[in-house]
Amino acid sequence: MTLDLARNLDASDPLRAFRERFSLPQGVVYLDGNSLGALPKDTPARLEQVVRGEWGEGLIRSWNDADWINLPQRVGAKIAPLIGAQADEVIACDSVSVNLFKLIGAALSMQPQRKVILSEPGNFPTDLYMIAGLEAQGLATRRLASRERIEAALDESVALLLLTHVHYKYGEPFDMVALTKAAHDVGALVLWDLSHSGGALPVDLNAANADFAVGCGYKYLNGGPGAPAYAYVARRHQEALSQPLTGWMGHAAPFAFTDDYTPAPGIDRLLAGTPGILGLAALEVGVDLIAEIGVDRLASKSRALSEFFRQAVADRLPDLELVSSPDPMARGSQLSFRHTQAYAICQALIARGIIGDFRDPDILRFGFAPAYVSFEDVFGAARALADVIVTGEWRRPEFQERAAVT
Amino acid sequence: MTLDLARNLDASDPLRAFRERFSLPQGVVYLDGNSLGALPKDTPARLEQVVRGEWGEGLIRSWNDADWINLPQRVGAKIAPLIGAQADEVIACDSVSVNLFKLIGAALSMQPQRKVILSEPGNFPTDLYMIAGLEAQGLATRRLASRERIEAALDESVALLLLTHVHYKYGEPFDMVALTKAAHDVGALVLWDLSHSGGALPVDLNAANADFAVGCGYKYLNGGPGAPAYAYVARRHQEALSQPLTGWMGHAAPFAFTDDYTPAPGIDRLLAGTPGILGLAALEVGVDLIAEIGVDRLASKSRALSEFFRQAVADRLPDLELVSSPDPMARGSQLSFRHTQAYAICQALIARGIIGDFRDPDILRFGFAPAYVSFEDVFGAARALADVIVTGEWRRPEFQERAAVT
Repeated sequence: MTLDLARNLDASDPLRAFRERFSLPQGVVYLDGNSLGALPKDTPARLEQVVRGEWGEGLIRSWNDADWINLPQRVGAKIAPLIGAQADEVIACDSVSVNLFKLIGAALSMQPQRKVILSEPGNFPTDLYMIAGLEAQGLATRRLASRERIEAALDESVALLLLTHVHYKYGEPFDMVALTKAAHDVGALVLWDLSHSGGALPVDLNAANADFAVGCGYKYLNGGPGAPAYAYVARRHQEALSQPLTGWMGHAAPFAFTDDYTPAPGIDRLLAGTPGILGLAALEVGVDLIAEIGVDRLASKSRALSEFFRQAVADRLPDLELVSSPDPMARGSQLSFRHTQAYAICQALIARGIIGDFRDPDILRFGFAPAYVSFEDVFGAARALADVIVTGEWRRPEFQERAAVT
Repeated sequence: MTLDLARNLDASDPLRAFRERFSLPQGVVYLDGNSLGALPKDTPARLEQVVRGEWGEGLIRSWNDADWINLPQRVGAKIAPLIGAQADEVIACDSVSVNLFKLIGAALSMQPQRKVILSEPGNFPTDLYMIAGLEAQGLATRRLASRERIEAALDESVALLLLTHVHYKYGEPFDMVALTKAAHDVGALVLWDLSHSGGALPVDLNAANADFAVGCGYKYLNGGPGAPAYAYVARRHQEALSQPLTGWMGHAAPFAFTDDYTPAPGIDRLLAGTPGILGLAALEVGVDLIAEIGVDRLASKSRALSEFFRQAVADRLPDLELVSSPDPMARGSQLSFRHTQAYAICQALIARGIIGDFRDPDILRFGFAPAYVSFEDVFGAARALADVIVTGEWRRPEFQERAAVT
């Protein structure tokens, strides 16, 4: 794993040209696109058009004239092929958390005799926390089972199996097909959180016969900080779907201003309030770019990048504990390492312009957003990581101080 | 009511200079700021900075370095003085609909022996619809009583009185002090929807001893299409507050990534998912501008504008039915008229560049956003309205066709 090899791999990389479609800061190696994706170069101009043109000039007329009213559906339909869904099965709106609540609530209402929501300990916090609110309302009971015991914990009291497809911290993927089938075998429904797989790895919700899914707009879809999320409901469940956040935009006739709620047909009933147009417009640019590249090419480059990094790190730091799988087919678009000084090491790397991230208490996580990360980037990151650890650079006092967001 | 008088009033208007702080299209009279506020001229530059600088250059570091993590609280604290609240009682996040759900849920959990949510028929639809989801979950029972019977409908089964302070369609205000007291007298809590009053009229939640409130960011606060909303919780309720959308951003330690939900202290527990930074940044510009002008001056100009319009219309169309109160102290920042051809008249006015709006089935609504509407604007609108009706211009076929969003 040498700089020359990295440069050769970049030169022959079929996605090389796409790096130029992102606005990346000088002197930065960005390995945190799984936390906040980079800025597509087309986004500022699109937002300028939405703000000055559609809002400033068009004003209220733009709900019709600029088709704002269909933006959640339009962006959802563009996300659909990235996750193996039909165009009318996905909608972009609200946050992952809020969409989890809608779909957990929907699953409970479809199975009134069941209350258990099954997940794994250590799942992304918001997935677990969104069950808590329903528990406090007396509507749900949370059950956690470790990864290898999930199947055994599935029984006929389970309303919903709620799992994150690729683990946010360790990068381990679940077998979506097998677990969906196992859940269905006991009459449970399944909700997949695609936040760490959608847009980076192949996902096929339809092939897995998945019931529900949610995913994040600001990671691999490059929608910007706090971008709207997306939600998927299999077509077979849509007609009878009842979700608790029954807002006016999910009504069959929002502008009839009636007193009684009648859900809109299909996926539209997942809408609650007025959609955030600025966020959706930025998300659309990111989704268009990822769709243009294509998930298969992204996944293939992601694996090559993470494998190059893994070997470059192993060459220099043979004792550093790899938490993710050494098999590129058995992990997401990231590599995680365990080190007692993970926080300070992460800070020392950031000071060198190498941005990865830290996950409490001892995980160093590097994400490989294949649309814009180069082999030279990951080579430089591996070399810097080795330097920081071998020289003890992380011991400097300024790298110990914890920021609000870690 | 003449053009000369209008121009004289504009010349002596203490808010005259603020009109220049908004980007208004040429040839348009905009009387729909109560549906979507106009674009502040500072907004595009601020968004450019957030997008190119904070997102593009700062990337994930901006959660700390640009203080994105505190944006919901910071914008909430700036909204607080506009609605008679303390800085730590307001937070900006999600939509009005989603915030209604949180606070209805919170009120129910505070009064486990009560299930009734009392509102009025014809309240803004999403306020009524958000009760429906909780009804379907078996947690709430909706009770509707017409405006004059609200007090009589308050009894000890009522958990929450949910009202919109100023009616979206007719502009009638409720007496916030009296109704809050009446609700408290039977042990009920009160949630005020300030969407049609906050930022245009004086609101004093603390003086009314209000429990909860929500409000809209995209109307009088000029936050842009689908801007984040805000939510208020009186300080006395915060410590024990339990709301159902228990997402990671409302956790006491979001970055500890624990499995169990512990609510953050204070108003922060109203957060659910990752806040939408683009929407919040645009909202902050609008809020700063409205705060700079000040609610008292806005309210005073609002009343003068609507009164000028009312008289100018009455001069020309003495038979047109005014639905709002003729008393400027007894209405919001709007005037509504009833006409069987309201839709076509509204379209004919829009074709002339006079943008008001139509509310099903027969209401013509004109909003007077006092920060940027001039007396000459409303004089022109009154004259055009008379023209369109007197000449029958609205009969043209192109004005009959209904758009998706009306």
